Amino acid sequence: MISRNEIKYIKDLSRKTIRFSEGKFVVEGEKLVDELLKSNFAIAALYATEGWVNSLATDVMIVTEKELSRISHLKTPNKVLAVVQMPEFWDLDETDTGLTLFLDRINDPGNLGTIIRMADWFGVKHIVCTKQSVDVFNNKVIQSSMGSIFRIPVEYVEGAEFIEEYKEQYPNHPIIGAAMQGDELGSFSFPKDGLLIMGSESHGIQDDIDAFVTKHITIPKFGNAESLNVGVATGVLLWEWKRG
Amino acid sequence: MISRNEIKYIKDLSRKTIRFSEGKFVVEGEKLVDELLKSNFAIAALYATEGWVNSLATDVMIVTEKELSRISHLKTPNKVLAVVQMPEFWDLDETDTGLTLFLDRINDPGNLGTIIRMADWFGVKHIVCTKQSVDVFNNKVIQSSMGSIFRIPVEYVEGAEFIEEYKEQYPNHPIIGAAMQGDELGSFSFPKDGLLIMGSESHGIQDDIDAFVTKHITIPKFGNAESLNVGVATGVLLWEWKRG
Repeated sequence: MISRNEIKYIKDLSRKTIRFSEGKFVVEGEKLVDELLKSNFAIAALYATEGWVNSLATDVMIVTEKELSRISHLKTPNKVLAVVQMPEFWDLDETDTGLTLFLDRINDPGNLGTIIRMADWFGVKHIVCTKQSVDVFNNKVIQSSMGSIFRIPVEYVEGAEFIEEYKEQYPNHPIIGAAMQGDELGSFSFPKDGLLIMGSESHGIQDDIDAFVTKHITIPKFGNAESLNVGVATGVLLWEWKRG
Repeated sequence: MISRNEIKYIKDLSRKTIRFSEGKFVVEGEKLVDELLKSNFAIAALYATEGWVNSLATDVMIVTEKELSRISHLKTPNKVLAVVQMPEFWDLDETDTGLTLFLDRINDPGNLGTIIRMADWFGVKHIVCTKQSVDVFNNKVIQSSMGSIFRIPVEYVEGAEFIEEYKEQYPNHPIIGAAMQGDELGSFSFPKDGLLIMGSESHGIQDDIDAFVTKHITIPKFGNAESLNVGVATGVLLWEWKRG
């Protein structure tokens, strides 16, 4: 039996302020919990309905479907729910090279999750977000990341401060900004190492961050749409990066 | 004053069967209705709150915010709602060349809308969908297409039948299928004309359609994600198509 307090505690973790004051977040569903168990993330509590099995799981509390639906943050709960310890934020690896993805004010959880998933596909080692971006431990971000959230470190930073540090550490790396007017993709060779900054669809890159950009780039337009979805644009740029 | 019957009629258009039996669908919000008014789509009725203006609009029925919220399909209604006549389905242009995008069982409305939007960016002339795909007049598809739905014809077809016809019309065009195992993007030059088939994320391309594919292609993986979002994958392929 789950206690009333436990139910309230888990339900409250759907709120960002509570997640951060508790340092915990919730992961749900068979597929995601399987990915979670293969990761280094520390699980604080694990609830599953009878019949759910995973050989990596320890300390599973068996709950009824009714109990699961009372703690779940989903409309359709799916067999298992984990309360997970937030990781310490990762320091930038001194020897890190490659592309660092910098997201400025990405607000849509689906977009952030999709970007984390494609970063994991294309081999991006880490992502930084300005603090005005959606919280990575938001349920929709986790769901749409399809488990990539357990493999790709996502760090929240003060934008300008972070770029200052990045420039000191990697003085020769370009700081690339996706823009509506910039060098057209395909007309130059995409740098292998550097910082790639993506702004929000409606507002672009903030001025104080854009001031650091050493190279603006653009995906050329061949039709009539006003803009591209930021997830799609990021995918195209990451492919161009790997394509060489 | 909107009548009770009118409210019920508009509300009912949120259901696919009603949309198709009536041949009508709903478009909401300032931005989308602006795009609609610039298009060739025929508007059956237009409802707006006091103060909304668009010089292209005729026969606007002024409604209160309360009335608008009673007819709206959105959680947060936005000034204007149009009931629109479904277009006749377009015939394939005999002289059409370029890439035709063929979507097999894309179920997620956000993905379909995003794909229509990027097709409009990259200059795809039309999209065909198998009938098991989500309905293009679904509210979420329209919203996420950001108005591109008024510019890019989306046709629903019997998959195999359509491809047979396509082959007769364009015997030399390749039929390209996005697959997990195929020629790696970047290792060949992407055909300028042809049919590009995208399957659903969970099920891929149906066997009877895949049987027509003359060239399977793959976006190479550099990291650990199991798959890419179908919208992102489509964006990468369309960019590669235009990149040349």
